[in-house]
Amino acid sequence: MRAAMRSIAVEESGAFIESFALPPTGDGPLNGLRFAVKDLIDVAGHRTGCGNPTWLATHPPAAVSAVCLEQLLAAGAHCAGKTITDEVAFSLLGVNHFYGTPLNAAAPDRVPGGSSSGSAAAVACGLVDFALGTDTGGSVRVPASNCGLWGLRPTHGVVSVAGVMPFAPTFDTVGILARSVDILQRSAAVLLASDQPATSSRPRTIHVIDEAFELADAVVRDALAPVIDCLKEMFPGSVRKTSLGGLCLDAAAADLAKWLEIYRMLQGTEAESCLGSWIAEAKPTFGPSTTAGFEFVRKLDRTRIGELARRREQFGRSLRSALGPEDLLCIPTSPTIAPLKSEISFDRNSDYYRRALSLTAISGVGRLPQISLPLATTSGAPIGLSLLGPYGEDLFLIQVVKQVDATFA
Amino acid sequence: MRAAMRSIAVEESGAFIESFALPPTGDGPLNGLRFAVKDLIDVAGHRTGCGNPTWLATHPPAAVSAVCLEQLLAAGAHCAGKTITDEVAFSLLGVNHFYGTPLNAAAPDRVPGGSSSGSAAAVACGLVDFALGTDTGGSVRVPASNCGLWGLRPTHGVVSVAGVMPFAPTFDTVGILARSVDILQRSAAVLLASDQPATSSRPRTIHVIDEAFELADAVVRDALAPVIDCLKEMFPGSVRKTSLGGLCLDAAAADLAKWLEIYRMLQGTEAESCLGSWIAEAKPTFGPSTTAGFEFVRKLDRTRIGELARRREQFGRSLRSALGPEDLLCIPTSPTIAPLKSEISFDRNSDYYRRALSLTAISGVGRLPQISLPLATTSGAPIGLSLLGPYGEDLFLIQVVKQVDATFA
Repeated sequence: MRAAMRSIAVEESGAFIESFALPPTGDGPLNGLRFAVKDLIDVAGHRTGCGNPTWLATHPPAAVSAVCLEQLLAAGAHCAGKTITDEVAFSLLGVNHFYGTPLNAAAPDRVPGGSSSGSAAAVACGLVDFALGTDTGGSVRVPASNCGLWGLRPTHGVVSVAGVMPFAPTFDTVGILARSVDILQRSAAVLLASDQPATSSRPRTIHVIDEAFELADAVVRDALAPVIDCLKEMFPGSVRKTSLGGLCLDAAAADLAKWLEIYRMLQGTEAESCLGSWIAEAKPTFGPSTTAGFEFVRKLDRTRIGELARRREQFGRSLRSALGPEDLLCIPTSPTIAPLKSEISFDRNSDYYRRALSLTAISGVGRLPQISLPLATTSGAPIGLSLLGPYGEDLFLIQVVKQVDATFA
Repeated sequence: MRAAMRSIAVEESGAFIESFALPPTGDGPLNGLRFAVKDLIDVAGHRTGCGNPTWLATHPPAAVSAVCLEQLLAAGAHCAGKTITDEVAFSLLGVNHFYGTPLNAAAPDRVPGGSSSGSAAAVACGLVDFALGTDTGGSVRVPASNCGLWGLRPTHGVVSVAGVMPFAPTFDTVGILARSVDILQRSAAVLLASDQPATSSRPRTIHVIDEAFELADAVVRDALAPVIDCLKEMFPGSVRKTSLGGLCLDAAAADLAKWLEIYRMLQGTEAESCLGSWIAEAKPTFGPSTTAGFEFVRKLDRTRIGELARRREQFGRSLRSALGPEDLLCIPTSPTIAPLKSEISFDRNSDYYRRALSLTAISGVGRLPQISLPLATTSGAPIGLSLLGPYGEDLFLIQVVKQVDATFA
């Protein structure tokens, strides 16, 4: 069951930190489409705030736009404004202490998810056709799941992050939230700079990852089951239950807590290397979630970076080797539907945070592309099913997803 | 013929912007080794200057070190200081208007090459065992060639750039200059976070790229010929002359001017997105080379980013597809020996700049690892031969290079 698309006023959406109308600079495949960009992405002539008032006050206005923005404008799209982000992109909740919580139009009593919260809200409220987010550890995928949108985290390193706040560079990506697969495909082809159609659209194997589904709530497993059944009907004999440990030929990889540990150590230490000097100098005021995040990061033992980086490359290499050019992984995007606004916790060791990051860590560690498909709901809220593709095969992944969208009733 | 290693005093080397003694934080494979880091890489408690006095004055001291530095310290190495870089890494010459020209110990009347000029000088003068540089468009490889050192540009995106000045993110890498292959191998294994030996050390094919050798000076071709003969003797039947156009199955790829155009457009526009806001705000004083560089960049037509990004992915994908896991490319690192200090030009359209960047663009566009081997000299100066490996196969590449070093007399 899909979440319905809505049409909600800008003010009610709480999506934008700044609205404007930036016309396209060229004609192309995105003619007539409107998009918004997360306030972590430079727009020439505007201040990039990164969701935090101290950041806004201590950085000059952008003199030059980010490369990803210019790619979209040159391809014919209009930019409608900048969207609210969790402070310095460091949250999965979508609750900004200073600028509010953008509306989850599909489940208004629940958080939109973050950190690309405003980008998700802008699309889900029908204000734009698609929006740019950034995804380091789930910041596009989780809001896509929470708000009932198509969300792409691309292969790491392909889409340019020039003009985007660096957070944890070996994980940072620019991703897309879209209201349809068609729009996702067109905008992704521009960002990924590929005009070649995928050579195949038929997966050889779709590995439904045991450990990932075991981590999800039972209601999530139940809600996603019909989509997996659809995959089985579409691709007979190709869908199989697989252990991540077996796939990687490494028993340690069966423990998602190990993927979580790799992600948290490396993301946290990279974030401190990227932002620590600014924090020490500017002494920013942070909201409680961000404060908790950096307290967590400061406790990390940085002498363990080498050990965790080795495990990351070991897991990542095993996973990439195991995936042929037409093989996919299937996992729940998130272990739960969006948390209720009244029940969120800023504790970085909460059960929700640990489970959510354990799932999002798989493509982060492996540098693989992932799409969240908004094809299920449970308890009145959306939940995404994710497909992950081989390294660099983003367009093949989209091609498969497009067929699923056309087939799933 | 190899350039001899020298032992020259710190002052005479002109390599360091700041000397200090940072002890290791752990025991490991780099025990007993001393290294230096380019002044683009954060060292906690020190100011990162990026080769420009305005940058130094407008940025706070680093509160946290770069991840790559901490990986080396945790593996047992000592850090001896920070080395001079060309301003904001934007040059291949190694001539810093404000801080001087580090000594090319192998050819004192010639430039060391840049932008990792001080890192190259520190190693070539025998002051450290290895040094970190950054390589966006040749900034490790060209100084390695000029100064007679082993130089690695790793696969793009694997070594963390957290705490390193962003310049052109889809090309930026942290690389290594070393006085021996053994030290290169040990330090690279730490940065690449791999403790697995390469599964093979025997290349299937070494493609000696016609177009690249045609671009080099005749004396460079002659000087490199004995090294290629050595490769032929070591790996009978594996070394073949190949056209880049043929390898990529794309006649356009045979024209290195196209690789150059891709590199310059994308590197230049990314650099403007990364540094443009700071330039507009801080109004830095630049030396003549950097001024010329940004004048060149400002003239780029940014609406062409999409077109050039598409060609980049097309060329890169073709090249990666053409290289099996044990195939290598062979090119001259640089089209000439190091320019004489008395004859350098800051013109970004000089014949030297265009030819040098045409060669370094190949691995940049393809995101491939490359090592410059210091096994030749001509006219009394070193010249490097380069081997490029498949994506992610850095350790295999090093394993091959190690055998060449052991065999070449």
